[in-house]
Amino acid sequence: MKVSARNVLKGTVKAIVPGAVNAEVIIEVAPGVEIVSIITKSSAESLQLAEGKEVYAVVKSSDVMVAVDEHD
Amino acid sequence: MKVSARNVLKGTVKAIVPGAVNAEVIIEVAPGVEIVSIITKSSAESLQLAEGKEVYAVVKSSDVMVAVDEHD
Amino acid sequence: MKVSARNVLKGTVKAIVPGAVNAEVIIEVAPGVEIVSIITKSSAESLQLAEGKEVYAVVKSSDVMVAVDEHD
Amino acid sequence: MKVSARNVLKGTVKAIVPGAVNAEVIIEVAPGVEIVSIITKSSAESLQLAEGKEVYAVVKSSDVMVAVDEHD
Amino acid sequence: MKVSARNVLKGTVKAIVPGAVNAEVIIEVAPGVEIVSIITKSSAESLQLAEGKEVYAVVKSSDVMVAVDEHD
Amino acid sequence: MKVSARNVLKGTVKAIVPGAVNAEVIIEVAPGVEIVSIITKSSAESLQLAEGKEVYAVVKSSDVMVAVDEHD
Repeated sequence: MKVSARNVLKGTVKAIVPGAVNAEVIIEVAPGVEIVSIITKSSAESLQLAEGKEVYAVVKSSDVMVAVDEHD
Repeated sequence: MKVSARNVLKGTVKAIVPGAVNAEVIIEVAPGVEIVSIITKSSAESLQLAEGKEVYAVVKSSDVMVAVDEHD
Repeated sequence: MKVSARNVLKGTVKAIVPGAVNAEVIIEVAPGVEIVSIITKSSAESLQLAEGKEVYAVVKSSDVMVAVDEHD
Repeated sequence: MKVSARNVLKGTVKAIVPGAVNAEVIIEVAPGVEIVSIITKSSAESLQLAEGKEVYAVVKSSDVMVAVDEHD
Repeated sequence: MKVSARNVLKGTVKAIVPGAVNAEVIIEVAPGVEIVSIITKSSAESLQLAEGKEVYAVVKSSDVMVAVDEHD
Repeated sequence: MKVSARNVLKGTVKAIVPGAVNAEVIIEVAPGVEIVSIITKSSAESLQLAEGKEVYAVVKSSDVMVAVDEHD
């Protein structure tokens, strides 16, 4: 399946922190660059996520804000 | 200002593609790793965005999906 | 690719309404049940969308609100 | 109340799965076509949701992604 | 219709700025407190929005971030 | 840091309701006008949120829907 989201970043699962309903998934997309995702636990299980697994972080471009340092 | 969004990725503006109302901002967060953001043109101007400027890509963790290759 | 989004609804493209930057895609997921999506034009082209094509409408469960009639 | 969201799909509550803070609501919008929503438990109670109740699944068009099978 | 979104703020349309596909709607929810919304032009027309009209700004609680001043 | 989100509303924390993973933060942005935010508990701690603290409610304009009363 190919999705319309503009950001599909390849990475590796660094850690999974399970909650009651949701799971926090930490994905390393480059050395030292991590992206945190929160998905439902049932999704995490359905995708068979585990530490070290190759995954993609998928983000719609309209969900990315831009910020600058204020002294700029 | 410090925001509650979990993902605040430092990067550099690679390109800005202006539209009628929105602007597409391409941010390099690591060598070869780019994130595309769509914000309003008035926001891009207010932040004085320009190629080469240091910025942050800000994404809520609940806006990050995870995907895996299907043959996995 | 398999995504963590809970809603992946199979359907058929009924119409594509192109704008300057975005395209409106109308997807029929059941007889008489249509879902409208707005994606960037470049995404629509990259997915080679066309009327009659089989596609999926993908929506995160946290992006679905519930409403009831007020006299209920 | 009438909302600006483009997708207002009539359906029936098939199941409600309560969590600690959130509730998962499964809505059938056509025979065999279900949409999963996650809302806060307090919202679910305020709307008096129950199995069999007629509801609407409300989704902004910018929150709908499109996907295609990769061999297409 | 009653929606599951937690934030339903009563206000008055201060201005409508039409674009090609979208419209920017500025809503005053308290004296001096304005909220900007971007919706499709067809939604704005369907809701018959006009300056001075009483409306509601509707926002899901998961779409509200919190920020603090950094010297705090 | 200055963000591209159009809505940055100054307010005061009225209450914090902690859950297992998330926290509900109620922000008063004007007398009698409250905005509810759900963020992760770790974000709430990192921002050192507490009742009475001055904060900002940050919302992207594309996350604000507009609604009208139906008899309008």
